[in-house]
Amino acid sequence: MKQELNPADVRFDRDGLIPAIVQDADSKEVLTLAYMNEESLRKTLETGETWFWSRSRLELWHKGATSGNTQEVISVQPDCDRDALLVRVRPRGPACHTGDYSCFREDGKESSPDRFAILNTLERVIAERDMTRPEKSYTTYLLEEGTDKILKKVGEEATEVVIAAKNRSSEELSWEASDLLFHLLVLLREQQLPLDRVLEELEKRHGGGK
Amino acid sequence: MKQELNPADVRFDRDGLIPAIVQDADSKEVLTLAYMNEESLRKTLETGETWFWSRSRLELWHKGATSGNTQEVISVQPDCDRDALLVRVRPRGPACHTGDYSCFREDGKESSPDRFAILNTLERVIAERDMTRPEKSYTTYLLEEGTDKILKKVGEEATEVVIAAKNRSSEELSWEASDLLFHLLVLLREQQLPLDRVLEELEKRHGGGK
Repeated sequence: MKQELNPADVRFDRDGLIPAIVQDADSKEVLTLAYMNEESLRKTLETGETWFWSRSRLELWHKGATSGNTQEVISVQPDCDRDALLVRVRPRGPACHTGDYSCFREDGKESSPDRFAILNTLERVIAERDMTRPEKSYTTYLLEEGTDKILKKVGEEATEVVIAAKNRSSEELSWEASDLLFHLLVLLREQQLPLDRVLEELEKRHGGGK
Repeated sequence: MKQELNPADVRFDRDGLIPAIVQDADSKEVLTLAYMNEESLRKTLETGETWFWSRSRLELWHKGATSGNTQEVISVQPDCDRDALLVRVRPRGPACHTGDYSCFREDGKESSPDRFAILNTLERVIAERDMTRPEKSYTTYLLEEGTDKILKKVGEEATEVVIAAKNRSSEELSWEASDLLFHLLVLLREQQLPLDRVLEELEKRHGGGK
């Protein structure tokens, strides 16, 4: 964690508190809104884990001290007028006292701790299919047919993305874009190009946020 | 917007206010922490745009009323103890009075052990470019040119992926695949389709590891 923030530079309210939005650094889900006084902000910066001020118990509170669900602090950022903080964390367990991942529970849909987890799953499944070649698997079929078949599918799905976007249909576009991503992952496997090489290339070009 | 929330059900503080975390529904970046009183919450739910209470000007404040940078409300969600709100929006311009995309300005870049972190970064950078339209940015150029230009690039990059694979060149393929991913993300932004919708579609199909 960068520790450049000086607690003296932020503006606490008349109770000596500043609201801290806690966000999962990876999934970007908002987990909690909690409050820090100067001491808890100092402890957060010193220890690299979140400390808050409990307005109900009126005491300093080391998040996860009893439950083990501490939060590793990735960054602490004040807003434009320095009276709110955004704390990006890597949580070691649920953020909410109810046992939920986030205090902002979505009715119906569970928010996932890792929005890109499916890309990991998919990559693993494709590698498994490649190694075991189970019958009746579409991935097996693609890999048996080989490069040309996979490339025809990449071209086809890219064209279907174009058509979906021209139709301005979100539903169609989400299907076709996911089809395109799937076939691209199969292609990378067939070409023995690790996805990480592609991600590193993106990092090299755009990682600085230019 | 779902309008199930009853303003009478949330807990306002002794000043009659509740903090509202404003998050970009598409990129999931946190944009602002602002405050609502009961009237501004009602107006937010009624109009589908964000209304706050300005603690400095002591007045009701329709975000973007003068600048045009209103925020379309996608959902309003209370937290576990109903004394904070998470407001997911689709912003029509920068959220910050400084002209920045977010009030939580990123200085420098956080390095992350998450291999997919670059996709988060890229998504944020594209959302920023869309809101602020800086000159000399390639993303600005693409967004100004519009759907057809972006789609031509998607088609072009897909074709270049095909050629790279036929050449069996890993280096060429990692370039072209990253180009394809970049332009696909720009397209999703232009079409207002959250990347999460695409990832969810992949999850639905492949999440069980079938």
